[in-house]
Amino acid sequence: MQTRRFYTLSGSCPDQVGIISRISGFIAQHNGWILESSYHADDGNDGHGSRYFMRMQVKADSLPFHLAEFRERFAPLAAELSMEWKISDSAVKRRVVLMVSKQEHCLYDLLARWQSKELDIEIPCVISNHDTFKAFVEWHGIPFHHVPISADNKIGAHAEICRIYDEVRGDTMVLARYMQILPPEMCARYPGQMINIHHSFLPSFVGARPYHQAFQRGVKLIGATCHYVTRELDQGPIIEQDVIRIDHSDSVEDMVRYGKDIEKAVLARGLRYHLEDRVLLHANKTVIFR
Amino acid sequence: MQTRRFYTLSGSCPDQVGIISRISGFIAQHNGWILESSYHADDGNDGHGSRYFMRMQVKADSLPFHLAEFRERFAPLAAELSMEWKISDSAVKRRVVLMVSKQEHCLYDLLARWQSKELDIEIPCVISNHDTFKAFVEWHGIPFHHVPISADNKIGAHAEICRIYDEVRGDTMVLARYMQILPPEMCARYPGQMINIHHSFLPSFVGARPYHQAFQRGVKLIGATCHYVTRELDQGPIIEQDVIRIDHSDSVEDMVRYGKDIEKAVLARGLRYHLEDRVLLHANKTVIFR
Amino acid sequence: MQTRRFYTLSGSCPDQVGIISRISGFIAQHNGWILESSYHADDGNDGHGSRYFMRMQVKADSLPFHLAEFRERFAPLAAELSMEWKISDSAVKRRVVLMVSKQEHCLYDLLARWQSKELDIEIPCVISNHDTFKAFVEWHGIPFHHVPISADNKIGAHAEICRIYDEVRGDTMVLARYMQILPPEMCARYPGQMINIHHSFLPSFVGARPYHQAFQRGVKLIGATCHYVTRELDQGPIIEQDVIRIDHSDSVEDMVRYGKDIEKAVLARGLRYHLEDRVLLHANKTVIFR
Amino acid sequence: MQTRRFYTLSGSCPDQVGIISRISGFIAQHNGWILESSYHADDGNDGHGSRYFMRMQVKADSLPFHLAEFRERFAPLAAELSMEWKISDSAVKRRVVLMVSKQEHCLYDLLARWQSKELDIEIPCVISNHDTFKAFVEWHGIPFHHVPISADNKIGAHAEICRIYDEVRGDTMVLARYMQILPPEMCARYPGQMINIHHSFLPSFVGARPYHQAFQRGVKLIGATCHYVTRELDQGPIIEQDVIRIDHSDSVEDMVRYGKDIEKAVLARGLRYHLEDRVLLHANKTVIFR
Repeated sequence: MQTRRFYTLSGSCPDQVGIISRISGFIAQHNGWILESSYHADDGNDGHGSRYFMRMQVKADSLPFHLAEFRERFAPLAAELSMEWKISDSAVKRRVVLMVSKQEHCLYDLLARWQSKELDIEIPCVISNHDTFKAFVEWHGIPFHHVPISADNKIGAHAEICRIYDEVRGDTMVLARYMQILPPEMCARYPGQMINIHHSFLPSFVGARPYHQAFQRGVKLIGATCHYVTRELDQGPIIEQDVIRIDHSDSVEDMVRYGKDIEKAVLARGLRYHLEDRVLLHANKTVIFR
Repeated sequence: MQTRRFYTLSGSCPDQVGIISRISGFIAQHNGWILESSYHADDGNDGHGSRYFMRMQVKADSLPFHLAEFRERFAPLAAELSMEWKISDSAVKRRVVLMVSKQEHCLYDLLARWQSKELDIEIPCVISNHDTFKAFVEWHGIPFHHVPISADNKIGAHAEICRIYDEVRGDTMVLARYMQILPPEMCARYPGQMINIHHSFLPSFVGARPYHQAFQRGVKLIGATCHYVTRELDQGPIIEQDVIRIDHSDSVEDMVRYGKDIEKAVLARGLRYHLEDRVLLHANKTVIFR
Repeated sequence: MQTRRFYTLSGSCPDQVGIISRISGFIAQHNGWILESSYHADDGNDGHGSRYFMRMQVKADSLPFHLAEFRERFAPLAAELSMEWKISDSAVKRRVVLMVSKQEHCLYDLLARWQSKELDIEIPCVISNHDTFKAFVEWHGIPFHHVPISADNKIGAHAEICRIYDEVRGDTMVLARYMQILPPEMCARYPGQMINIHHSFLPSFVGARPYHQAFQRGVKLIGATCHYVTRELDQGPIIEQDVIRIDHSDSVEDMVRYGKDIEKAVLARGLRYHLEDRVLLHANKTVIFR
Repeated sequence: MQTRRFYTLSGSCPDQVGIISRISGFIAQHNGWILESSYHADDGNDGHGSRYFMRMQVKADSLPFHLAEFRERFAPLAAELSMEWKISDSAVKRRVVLMVSKQEHCLYDLLARWQSKELDIEIPCVISNHDTFKAFVEWHGIPFHHVPISADNKIGAHAEICRIYDEVRGDTMVLARYMQILPPEMCARYPGQMINIHHSFLPSFVGARPYHQAFQRGVKLIGATCHYVTRELDQGPIIEQDVIRIDHSDSVEDMVRYGKDIEKAVLARGLRYHLEDRVLLHANKTVIFR
């Protein structure tokens, strides 16, 4: 499918006249072939100031140099524009650590996508507070770490998770229905790297047992939300959401079943946006260049 | 289209063996032709007790008697089953009073459906706190009452609305983006008769300016909720909901525009369910026999 | 979750006065507790005659006899009503044979549901024209049969599939993106047992490469269709469908990726309806009692 | 809401290195403030050649000249790029002629949007083959032309429609459930100006009575399609589509009712994309810069 190699340049800066011109001019001057480009100017109405967001995919072999030199040459322009930016190489696979508990749906779903290379990533390991899926994960040739969590060992367990994540040089941690709350310090340690799937259409039904809450309120649609994890539980920037229709005949168990289908689809879409650098943060919100 | 006349029998009672048998037996014994029938047994897991819900449409001319006699003959059986029930006649048009302010979308939408008889109701009058749509409504041959509301005259204005509603013998009051909060006493006075369209996917974003709230939170879908009005603002039983996708490029104004399309569609569906006796209340939730 | 045992009685007959009364009367007379019941009267406008459809779940231990005796006692009433009917026992697991080729998504998805008992079935074996998933299936403890198909051996291969299916006493055959066309004789041999997932929103884009067809036509939504397999390719009764939004930036490969998410969700829903006897056939259409 | 004036520049050209750079350079050189910009590079896989599409909104008062001078100065660059392009001014209202028959929903919907200025256009007249909505349209202060069509007068009637459209200097003709087929010559006369709403999810159910066709096939979702009218009936480039779920209990009349809600929403969205120059044609497909 997508075999050609490309670089993805993304970032944001205060808005002003001429940003696209200067950046695309830089690319064109080196004969770079732009495959895809997206821009968004926030109008500053949300009180965070008018800001410019961009993402470009440039064909790797159209440029006369590689990433290191690109970075060096682009830095002065970015500095002039006060741009926060990054560039990534499609040939370098992202290293995604999966965190799971006892529910199977997101794990099977992500491994299916990984197996078929639809999700073209490394999974250096899976970490779980249960050993339910040890054999299944290892069968796929992926190391599995069982890090049990009890009231007594929380600090040690969280330290162990961080140690493993650092050791395998993870760059993304996916909470694939991992049913433990991670401490604020840990959430702050990996900003923009920890992705969670919450089983409600946030901001409805934050916290525990959202399907029970939805059942009690009698809503006619239930949903799921993929978001970055921040210090405040269920309050991080939303990446993706979706819903499915239910009715009065659906029990909480039925809602859980329907919800699983939404959860895994929303997580997979949100994760892909993240991995392809399609998500740019702006205060507590996201710009998603689909 | 729907020209045949039918009776709609609906109600609920504590669950027990043999309810369908006894009720359908009663209908069959009088040779009644059931056009449509729906049943739902609540499993009692929500703490309100196991309860049985039903709705039947019976062809009017298949029965050897009319509504008054049906009511008389059915009452003993209903009493035995401790059933709360009602029966309505498709030949008797419902009397729906519309309440509007300055937004056009729900008003035009409902009048279009009324004009084409898709919504086969009487609209004895439209009441508004502004005179924006006076000429438009009157052109349709429908009386228009301008009842302005200010900080000073709230009590009088609310009394006037009740007076008009009672005088025209309204049986349903539709708050079609009526932008005033009605007092708890008034909400309690017409239980199960007042239908509101709220411009968010409840329980998210209760209260004022929900699109601004949604914009601030950065949700990826916005919605609307049609619900019965109760004493507590935006807390009544939900009849219908729906959502539409937005993205980072959508301003609050864009969200308002998208939202209007969802609001009018959700209100129209919810109102139809109500008018066709498809909505049964159970505590603060609804059973909807679509 | 759903631990209580129940019988599911479903069927259809020519419409007349008193059907519900007689059937629910039969159940009530034996003290049967109806957990769920659904009825539909087709109005005969499609030229196939007015027909009555029903489905009931009865609590098993509320009845004083088991299935064999139920069948015997119910048969005379069914005969009087000219009803085609069946009754099944929730304690008897259905035997579902999966047919796959080289695509992983439906297989992983169904095995995840089976592993967690969301799908509470037996999978006596998986049959494939490739050996891609042999190890994966066998790891789950499920026998895997590799039945290659080439231009030369079609008749033999199809016979082998039938032999295996019969030998394992399959009652449902799921074509989970099985990329071979099965011969009309085989389709006719297992009526109402073979379920396919087609990767388009039928009747659009029948036949080969539907995503390429959709790309050429420039549609704004793509879909998937779960249907019974009949003699005519892609023409069988539709059980379930759904769609997802795409846009001009999506290549055929992107559409394939989005489509996979719809395919597996639609197949899983359609299969569940089938397994729970929620699907009743009427000419070339289905009644689905959700 | 949207009070600032802007120019919309849109167009397409063969793809090459440096297009964005040169065009955004031209804008920046004149100090133009880009409010919104979208680009799409077609990969040429559909056999029509790799092509570049773009759309920019530039703040009008940021430029030192008006449209005429912009056109003159931009023309040489566009010629170098072999670009087909246009530029429009948000202060110049589009002139949209509505064509209707006897169905009310799209007409009421469009007039509601026009009345509230959500749709900020001129409606120089409404043309209909029936006089059903004459008084309603005229009440809004819009001229109404009744142009009856019979087997005998088709040529004359079509000529009269063209005469009126030309006379009022229409730039967009909306077939808002206009139930007559317009001749190929007329369709070819106004390329990219005639927008139709078809009451099916094309390419399913082309031609007459699509809801009846959908009922016969037993589909589980019905839809609507907004497309440009071309010589070939129901084959023009698709602008927007959507669907709604139905089930076995829905008659053709129910489907018509559900369908109306989809039709008006899809038409309104498609029309807005068109009016804001968000639709670029590519062979028989559209690029939509939402």
